Amino acid sequence: MKKIIVLVAPGFEEIEFSAPVDILRRLELDVVTAGVLGREVEGAHGVIVRADTTLAEVDLAGADALVLPGGPGSWVMRDTPAVIAKIQEAHAAGKLVAAICAAPLALGKAGILTGKKASAYPDPSVLDELKEEGVKVMADQVTVDGNIVTANGPAAALAFGYTLGECLGKAAEVVELKKAMVYA
Amino acid sequence: MKKIIVLVAPGFEEIEFSAPVDILRRLELDVVTAGVLGREVEGAHGVIVRADTTLAEVDLAGADALVLPGGPGSWVMRDTPAVIAKIQEAHAAGKLVAAICAAPLALGKAGILTGKKASAYPDPSVLDELKEEGVKVMADQVTVDGNIVTANGPAAALAFGYTLGECLGKAAEVVELKKAMVYA
Repeated sequence: MKKIIVLVAPGFEEIEFSAPVDILRRLELDVVTAGVLGREVEGAHGVIVRADTTLAEVDLAGADALVLPGGPGSWVMRDTPAVIAKIQEAHAAGKLVAAICAAPLALGKAGILTGKKASAYPDPSVLDELKEEGVKVMADQVTVDGNIVTANGPAAALAFGYTLGECLGKAAEVVELKKAMVYA
Repeated sequence: MKKIIVLVAPGFEEIEFSAPVDILRRLELDVVTAGVLGREVEGAHGVIVRADTTLAEVDLAGADALVLPGGPGSWVMRDTPAVIAKIQEAHAAGKLVAAICAAPLALGKAGILTGKKASAYPDPSVLDELKEEGVKVMADQVTVDGNIVTANGPAAALAFGYTLGECLGKAAEVVELKKAMVYA
């Protein structure tokens, strides 16, 4: 069973966290949520979740993918050296690396988006920083470039989750899952 | 500021919980999450949240709306007499009552959907039970009938949240919020 690490930073966007975790677990993938600064984490809109483990404890070597939800927590992740190191380690090992909304900023900081296509939250402060890293910002909800999946905001959270499932070998199951989730 | 109680039962659907809480708090409404059986609650896909309070402690009299997320927790709510009593109390007082996915079953059990139009999760076990309660089940993602708002599943969670915002007097803000959330 493929294993996915989902990071949970203070100020995470609740929909962007819930949707990929929910979808990937419905696809019977092994999802482990890892708090960046601790196990109990408050989201951008006051939802408090208890993560399965912490970034310090998580076994990235045994994982197939690393997923970063967005929200204000994006800047926490971008500015946490341990997160940047995990992104670089995952990417160098050929794992899937994914980020939504403002979280692609952390991928940019890690240097893995240079020359790549990516979707991101369409605010100038986010887009300008990505362009400075040499990222080709796309207008699409979700962009896949090699082993990197990015998406543009909360309303893309389900599409982001489905795309991750497809990239992790569950394309046929995603078709059925969309029906089960009444996804048009 | 209008106040909304969002119930959190064991087995709640994570997207259906997160989206309305996120959206209604972005609209600067006072959202209080209330655990049905306790404050720490595990969702249908293993996300553990700590609710703001419990159903036993919550002040429904001071609230304007009662919202029920779906998932397997729908049956917990349907079968918890204190939930049924709160639904009946809220409806009798003219408050907004809302439910998504299978959670309309609890509204049906409370007897407030008889003769009403409602959206619900399109599974025969759910639809048959609602039809027995005299509910006119609609094919739409979201249905508003008087003070009752219902929606059909996880992929409708954002539309459900936006509709609740509109019904709570934030229609103009919802237009702006959809843009901010990159909602097509």
